Amino acid sequence: MGIAMSQYFDTPQDAEDAYYDALEDGDLEALLTVWDTTDDISCLLPMHPLAQGRSAVREVFTRLCARGQGIALSVKHLGWIDGGDVAIHHVEESPQGHAPDGQPPMAVYGVNIFRRGAEGWRLIVHQNAPTAPPAGRAPPMAR
Amino acid sequence: MGIAMSQYFDTPQDAEDAYYDALEDGDLEALLTVWDTTDDISCLLPMHPLAQGRSAVREVFTRLCARGQGIALSVKHLGWIDGGDVAIHHVEESPQGHAPDGQPPMAVYGVNIFRRGAEGWRLIVHQNAPTAPPAGRAPPMAR
Repeated sequence: MGIAMSQYFDTPQDAEDAYYDALEDGDLEALLTVWDTTDDISCLLPMHPLAQGRSAVREVFTRLCARGQGIALSVKHLGWIDGGDVAIHHVEESPQGHAPDGQPPMAVYGVNIFRRGAEGWRLIVHQNAPTAPPAGRAPPMAR
Repeated sequence: MGIAMSQYFDTPQDAEDAYYDALEDGDLEALLTVWDTTDDISCLLPMHPLAQGRSAVREVFTRLCARGQGIALSVKHLGWIDGGDVAIHHVEESPQGHAPDGQPPMAVYGVNIFRRGAEGWRLIVHQNAPTAPPAGRAPPMAR
């Protein structure tokens, strides 16, 4: 990973672009380069347990990339928060293509959190959540 | 809201405790006091659309509190990230009691993000996501 680790991201957006590019390419080393090298990182993909720490995050993306194909997502920015050395991006991720039943694939919310360190901006948290049910179906208020 | 707004939270944990206490009490003003007064806040409750901005967040909790009962959650801390003036907490929220079918209620992941400002620590992001399916049922790898 020596070469990949020399990557420097000047802005949170540079790191985020690199993340989705690497995901589309199914490129494990490029993906891991976007993540911070510290052990306080965490990743929550849909229907997965929360992966905490460098080793757990590596395992998640190792499994994902072992399928031998990337994941192409259309990413829509919903908003971002500038917190000094921490940047929080809200996105909506839509898988490209169609589901087997011909329906458009379900979009998910994502929050990407980046932190600025000696090696530039790195991803420290990625968390997905389902989008709301279609209009006309009232969301359950119980929680 | 004059009195409530004078609340000062010395630590992210103080703000988080106040959030879950206010949720349990169904106390709208106390809930809104925990949130930052800026317009870059956002809240994603399970099966809801993403609420962005002070007005949208107020609307979410106004509806929630209009039910006339609070929501008591057991909160387990999974980890936290210290980002200087930003603090990120990973929690697991479990509704207390039992669902109508007698099953233990489903826990959800939560990420709470706090920011330090002139008025102490305030909540700027709350985002929920489902926990993983029970062991034995493999999570879908497609995303």
